[in-house]
Amino acid sequence: MKYWSKFFIPTLKESPADAEIPSHKLLVRAGIVRKLGGGLYTYMPFGLRAIHKITQICREEIDRGGGIELWMPHVHPAESWTNGPRWAAAREIMFRADSASATLGAAKEPEFVLGPTHEEIITPIVKAEITSYRDLPKNFYQIATKFRNEIRPRYGLMRAREFIMMDAYSFDANDESATTSYMAMKAAYEAFFRRLGVQAIAVEADTGVMGGSFSHEFMVPAEVGDDDIIYCEESGYAANREKATSAIVPKDLAEAAPVGAVEEFATPGVTTIAQLEAAPYNVAADKQFKTLVYIGDGKPFIVILRGNDELEEAKLGSLGFALCRPATPEEIEPVLGAKPGSLGAVKGTIKDPGALAGIFADRAIQLVGNGTTGANKDGFHLRNVNVARDLAITKFGDFRRVRPGEPCPVSGKPLKVRRGIEVGHIFKLGTKYSEKYGAVYTDDQKQQHLMVMGSYGIGISRTMQAIIEQGHDADGIIWPWPVAPFQVLVCLLDPQAADAAEMARKVAEAAEQAGADVLVDDRAERPGVKFKDADLIGVPLRITIGGKGLKEGVIEMKWRHEKDVAKIPVAEALERVSAAVKAANDAAPKA
Amino acid sequence: MKYWSKFFIPTLKESPADAEIPSHKLLVRAGIVRKLGGGLYTYMPFGLRAIHKITQICREEIDRGGGIELWMPHVHPAESWTNGPRWAAAREIMFRADSASATLGAAKEPEFVLGPTHEEIITPIVKAEITSYRDLPKNFYQIATKFRNEIRPRYGLMRAREFIMMDAYSFDANDESATTSYMAMKAAYEAFFRRLGVQAIAVEADTGVMGGSFSHEFMVPAEVGDDDIIYCEESGYAANREKATSAIVPKDLAEAAPVGAVEEFATPGVTTIAQLEAAPYNVAADKQFKTLVYIGDGKPFIVILRGNDELEEAKLGSLGFALCRPATPEEIEPVLGAKPGSLGAVKGTIKDPGALAGIFADRAIQLVGNGTTGANKDGFHLRNVNVARDLAITKFGDFRRVRPGEPCPVSGKPLKVRRGIEVGHIFKLGTKYSEKYGAVYTDDQKQQHLMVMGSYGIGISRTMQAIIEQGHDADGIIWPWPVAPFQVLVCLLDPQAADAAEMARKVAEAAEQAGADVLVDDRAERPGVKFKDADLIGVPLRITIGGKGLKEGVIEMKWRHEKDVAKIPVAEALERVSAAVKAANDAAPKA
Repeated sequence: MKYWSKFFIPTLKESPADAEIPSHKLLVRAGIVRKLGGGLYTYMPFGLRAIHKITQICREEIDRGGGIELWMPHVHPAESWTNGPRWAAAREIMFRADSASATLGAAKEPEFVLGPTHEEIITPIVKAEITSYRDLPKNFYQIATKFRNEIRPRYGLMRAREFIMMDAYSFDANDESATTSYMAMKAAYEAFFRRLGVQAIAVEADTGVMGGSFSHEFMVPAEVGDDDIIYCEESGYAANREKATSAIVPKDLAEAAPVGAVEEFATPGVTTIAQLEAAPYNVAADKQFKTLVYIGDGKPFIVILRGNDELEEAKLGSLGFALCRPATPEEIEPVLGAKPGSLGAVKGTIKDPGALAGIFADRAIQLVGNGTTGANKDGFHLRNVNVARDLAITKFGDFRRVRPGEPCPVSGKPLKVRRGIEVGHIFKLGTKYSEKYGAVYTDDQKQQHLMVMGSYGIGISRTMQAIIEQGHDADGIIWPWPVAPFQVLVCLLDPQAADAAEMARKVAEAAEQAGADVLVDDRAERPGVKFKDADLIGVPLRITIGGKGLKEGVIEMKWRHEKDVAKIPVAEALERVSAAVKAANDAAPKA
Repeated sequence: MKYWSKFFIPTLKESPADAEIPSHKLLVRAGIVRKLGGGLYTYMPFGLRAIHKITQICREEIDRGGGIELWMPHVHPAESWTNGPRWAAAREIMFRADSASATLGAAKEPEFVLGPTHEEIITPIVKAEITSYRDLPKNFYQIATKFRNEIRPRYGLMRAREFIMMDAYSFDANDESATTSYMAMKAAYEAFFRRLGVQAIAVEADTGVMGGSFSHEFMVPAEVGDDDIIYCEESGYAANREKATSAIVPKDLAEAAPVGAVEEFATPGVTTIAQLEAAPYNVAADKQFKTLVYIGDGKPFIVILRGNDELEEAKLGSLGFALCRPATPEEIEPVLGAKPGSLGAVKGTIKDPGALAGIFADRAIQLVGNGTTGANKDGFHLRNVNVARDLAITKFGDFRRVRPGEPCPVSGKPLKVRRGIEVGHIFKLGTKYSEKYGAVYTDDQKQQHLMVMGSYGIGISRTMQAIIEQGHDADGIIWPWPVAPFQVLVCLLDPQAADAAEMARKVAEAAEQAGADVLVDDRAERPGVKFKDADLIGVPLRITIGGKGLKEGVIEMKWRHEKDVAKIPVAEALERVSAAVKAANDAAPKA
């Protein structure tokens, strides 16, 4: 039991200027966090209590899912990363650490770095310590601070430079066992979010720079979410924007026959899809080929899409480059022979085809069949371009962004879209890291095999904010019972009145005895201030003691998520409060 | 309850090459930590359990001592420090953090730093959030990772680059209240170490770069300790080497009368105390003045000691300089007029007295009274130098290192010395930080005052290692019951035999039911290996089940700290094990 006057919840009337979303505003207004710098927050005493509860529930469920807890350093020798498989991409979002008094030369490489995730650390540990099939499977996890040098931190704890994460790494003897470990973790995640009292949806996700074979994200649906969830109500299909696919191209689509010879025509000043759609050309966007040039690990490559489709950049991850970025006009012209706006991939028109790492086409261009594209000659386009005859495609793939309304890949019904906050991620990693670090084991026949890995993350601090984003109203937070920093708030209206103070103490003790965390608001503040603060900080059950009520022999009981106030005779107070706490504990989702 | 085959304790027969002290060897051999880089350790699953227990006991006792837990960022904007009162000294041991992909110019100042302690962070928070006397006193603490860029990390977790600390900061309305907060924390520390089952002694300590008015260190006595504890068995006086003082100079010592005029004499080639002690000079060391030159915040100053005394550098902290270091011969000669070996502080002999920040003398030179010193002329000394007449002392102080055998400042009995490991530190800080950051409050008369601060630290990871240093034998660790990662080890000799496995499960459940953390060694290993590992990892109570014993109807029970093995009839097993666990829990020091 804590007394507010001795505890510390600095509530604020006003939201900070940099807070754009409700949960960020409430984090600050309810005294849960204070900002130290961009993306750097102090967890204030009230907020840390929620973090501890979320952490403990996470620990219990990951343990149940087979996890073994350990704790790896935050500071890593730079070699751990520079010798790893993704340094080029990772360093973009990482912090380096050096002596604060050293003079750093321009070319000096980092001595240490701060860990954003720990595949590079755990895999060598497991390689060194586990050699036999008898010690597999193993799943190691930690709940610790991670660091990302976000260029534009925002939304409070959502995109921060420092955040608390549960990260786990599973090691299995074979792919089947790895899938079992993956599924056990998926179940642990589901149990975790259920126990928190938060709605989180598992969606198919892209594996991105992590590599690996498949992946799910856990999303908390919220208007202000950073991510799109593409889903089908009929089939239950759900994927994030980067991964989502649709059945827009029929599986049995026949190859289009050519409609005539390729024909060049002048298009002076035309550099966009829209300009070519307009008179005098009148080429519908879905009859155009869109030709994009990217640089993959230093080498240019072409991506061809339908004119009316958008590239989903994350899908380029399937091409296997460590780093991808759009090419600049200066990089494009020497290779294709023209500036952006007149680009194409028709055989014989590319100036230096040998310079290309490949020509990749979205499958949807088969819906175009015959279409119009740039001539690789500024101010000219080509028509009657046939996909099969005229384009030297290295590989077809899924590169386009899905649009709501397109047919679900499972049911064929129209896909829908909603926003979500990513709070967890699980990856079936495969052998990318075990191969790199030589993490092998010996089977019972003395044969060596690579371990098959999985990698798992839950944003603990982000989850706390998502809970607030999902549970609030105009007056403040509405904490779910299991993670509320305090579950019962005893609102003492006359702290000076001995009888009221004594009653408050008894009620608080009864609530604590019944299994609740209790805060007594004993501050010398007006009732109006206390009620406003009570709504703001969102403690689930408020008991008001004092004032007119107590003189009439009643205390008040009110749930934060309900409107009604119950008046309870003083004689029944302890029993009723105790029963309410027990009922809330019983109703909370169980382990 | 955990099964060893599914848990992970990678024990080793050999100690790592870099481990110099028993606890460091055992940390690695018992699978408690693994080294990632110099001073960077992963807490392996077995070790993390001890860390969690120590953390929890710490949290309970600091809460009881009035602490309110919060959690501050690890990464700090550099301005938090560069604008603070001790950046010049602190940056020597700090990490800077910058973008890992940034090219750093030679002159680029850090963008972020990693926190070694948090006065610079908490004081501005309190300044912003607390304005009224009504909100005081407050004591905020956290249990979190700290970072020190140790040039020479060693002794495992003892001197690491990353370590876990409890750090607390108290804010009071006045000095008296601040002393009360200090004493409450001192009591909390004592309760904490008592509950861990570790012997820790509070000793008076120097405040050093922290500033502040007084300070205690908590030391675990150990041969391998980094620090000396000077103590008196009679009076209970105890201080660390840096702070210790003795009654070697009687309080009522009269000022020595001059014995004659100052007289210069040639000492060609003489540059040491020892050379002047030898023939033909025969000047006893305790009749010489030792003249040292230091640089304090860029300006030279002189320290005078007896020839037979050593400077205790930490005691220069009392002079108030932010940074002190010995002067180089090149810095000394232009000011004093001679090279080291012929230095002195006799009036009129100093070449450029205006350049000096002061002449400070240890009080023990009053025991010399009249003595010999350098003439500030290479190859010459002066005799008949009288302290009062000839030396222009700015200030007398305590600068010498105390030696065992000198009289205790309290009892006058001979002081003793022993080695200790510093595991905690408390500082009465005063107003150094509140003044710097403007942390003021308004009293009930609307008057503003500076808050009076205290600062407190416990090395959580270091304490774990000190526990091992204090509790081990030739075979391995002997964990105290309250912090043992597991308290009962059920050593199952034939994991294949169904009856033994079933018995082990029942015994383990009974022990768990009685309130112990239980590990079942179900590995397919020989009994010899299991017993050796059991001694190495040091679980307090070992129950052996299987083999010949079980056939004869007995199981074995053995305490790690005792030699005897008790044979228990199977029929009494559950009851006896349960009773043993309950007795151990009852015997453990209580909150």
